[in-house]
Amino acid sequence: MWPNRRLLDLLEIELPIIQAPMAGAGGSALATAVSKAGGLGSLPCAMLDEAQMRAEAGIIRQQTANPFNMNFFCHTPVAATAAQQAAWTARLAPFYDEAGLDSRAVAPAPHRRAFDAEMCALVEDIKPEVVSFHFGLPEPALLDRVRATGARVLSSATTVAEARWLAERGVDAVIAQGYEAGGHRGMFLSRDITAQPGVMALVPQIVDAVEVPVIAAGGIADGRGIAAAFALGAAGVQIGTAYLFTPEATISDIHRAALHGAADDQTVLTNVFSGKPARGLINRVIREVGPIAAEAPPFPAAGAALAPLKAAAEKSGSGDFSSLWSGQAAALGRDLEAGDLTRALASDASQRLGLLTGGPAQD
Amino acid sequence: MWPNRRLLDLLEIELPIIQAPMAGAGGSALATAVSKAGGLGSLPCAMLDEAQMRAEAGIIRQQTANPFNMNFFCHTPVAATAAQQAAWTARLAPFYDEAGLDSRAVAPAPHRRAFDAEMCALVEDIKPEVVSFHFGLPEPALLDRVRATGARVLSSATTVAEARWLAERGVDAVIAQGYEAGGHRGMFLSRDITAQPGVMALVPQIVDAVEVPVIAAGGIADGRGIAAAFALGAAGVQIGTAYLFTPEATISDIHRAALHGAADDQTVLTNVFSGKPARGLINRVIREVGPIAAEAPPFPAAGAALAPLKAAAEKSGSGDFSSLWSGQAAALGRDLEAGDLTRALASDASQRLGLLTGGPAQD
Repeated sequence: MWPNRRLLDLLEIELPIIQAPMAGAGGSALATAVSKAGGLGSLPCAMLDEAQMRAEAGIIRQQTANPFNMNFFCHTPVAATAAQQAAWTARLAPFYDEAGLDSRAVAPAPHRRAFDAEMCALVEDIKPEVVSFHFGLPEPALLDRVRATGARVLSSATTVAEARWLAERGVDAVIAQGYEAGGHRGMFLSRDITAQPGVMALVPQIVDAVEVPVIAAGGIADGRGIAAAFALGAAGVQIGTAYLFTPEATISDIHRAALHGAADDQTVLTNVFSGKPARGLINRVIREVGPIAAEAPPFPAAGAALAPLKAAAEKSGSGDFSSLWSGQAAALGRDLEAGDLTRALASDASQRLGLLTGGPAQD
Repeated sequence: MWPNRRLLDLLEIELPIIQAPMAGAGGSALATAVSKAGGLGSLPCAMLDEAQMRAEAGIIRQQTANPFNMNFFCHTPVAATAAQQAAWTARLAPFYDEAGLDSRAVAPAPHRRAFDAEMCALVEDIKPEVVSFHFGLPEPALLDRVRATGARVLSSATTVAEARWLAERGVDAVIAQGYEAGGHRGMFLSRDITAQPGVMALVPQIVDAVEVPVIAAGGIADGRGIAAAFALGAAGVQIGTAYLFTPEATISDIHRAALHGAADDQTVLTNVFSGKPARGLINRVIREVGPIAAEAPPFPAAGAALAPLKAAAEKSGSGDFSSLWSGQAAALGRDLEAGDLTRALASDASQRLGLLTGGPAQD
């Protein structure tokens, strides 16, 4: 049924669909539903503490024997300097004034922990079938320990150079994250967001460059995109935004409503919410401060100063200061439960692939 | 053989491949070769005078009875103010000094004429089977005259909103120009290049939005990309960069060499060469002045002040100040004659489509 079974065989899954790990936007419920349906559910761990990781992974294990993925960030934490913090606070001060908030009362940034020895020990304990990384890979000793658990290791590449780097370090598959993708870009060698390639260009070039299976990500939200990914040489897809429409997604009503109104040309890469470029729906803070603010302190510190503004705005129903993560194909989203969505995506893709060999398909 | 014949039937061509019109980079030889091979050859007219258009079209007609396309720009010419010119000259002055050139000796910008009544009369005379526009459409009276010749009318959309606008005005097919595409972006309603969607996201959303056939463009340079375009719902593709590798392309040796060394992450959208955003390989002037220079005067005036720098640099074999137009998939380019390339692309795509229905294809 699938033209390329390399990912299915590698991960021992039935459907070539990985639910993208989206920190803060989905947990065990989303991952369980996708894994139960035959795709690969992913538990994003970067914003969880160890107890939460353990609890969430336990819930998934309890509900399905199918493989699932635990996802970790591999950024090198950089502390913001006092000068950077001050510049950022100053940049945002007019919004604090407008909201009647005290900019001295800024809380720490949302927790985004880089993969470390403790998290590695937890992986050794939980033994997820798949571990995926974002922003590169952990240090070799930790990577070896993960590998020794038997887990298949995935990571994202936004360029051919990043894909080669990952393949040289032994990943089992490369996620080709195209420009279209929502949320944080996995870029770790590349620094220039203006030179990031789209999926159509990126996937075949990565397929040509590495031996391991390639997973297409970015702008894929229905069966057409999945079929196209296979046409480009991918062995599967990773889908994020489409899963934000499911009831299992843990996003705010404001975020959900914004996604329902989204169009193709209403997202940008912005660093205002965390300090690293990520794609989200354009809102007031992006328009007025970003999309790329020179003053934003390094990841993840930028988020701290926005938190009070976000909380105040959301109280009155506004997403003006919220990170409304979205890829470029949100308009293709459908309101389905995550298991049903997974099955529908696979079924639509399969049908689409069947139509491509000279049948009477007319769009 | 093709899963969707709408474009083939509409344009009465044999292969669903349109050679992108690339002003300055290809003329009658390229268009003829592609049309003879069964694709749609395109003659870019924006940088030609009427005598040249007539001569070039005559050469194509003489060599093939197959349909061909004449392409025109529909920008609204905006004269640069003296202040804009002065700011731009000042911005480039250090380069003039370095090259020992006199910045007061700037010649007019390369001629880029917007479609007008005289060009329309020429279309009425030559009667190309297809007329394509870039940057929107001409005024209704001129469009009606083009239509009255029997020509099929195409134009590019970079967003769903632009596609709807074109469809409402009666184009026969919409070219969905994704972010990956080389050369000038056709954007005419959109102004924000940071929000431009990639092909993977753009094509299915435009297919859903308009009734007419959709042609995918951007990052497509081999059979995989063509097959993927069909998977997304497109009825054909427009390919530019891959044709720059053919001997029929009229680009400089410097440009050709740069394309042969290109990688996926070495192009950006820049306005430094013309004043409008266009994708090209990153070179010195882009790095040091762009990619988007606030001082660049409106299209096409920005090119004037660069011309002497370009000429001087190229004399010593350097492309530091040349517009090295390229999409994001130049690395997939092959050195074939344009007719052979057209046939190879179609054959590869056809084979690829055949493999997508559960055959043993393993990439």
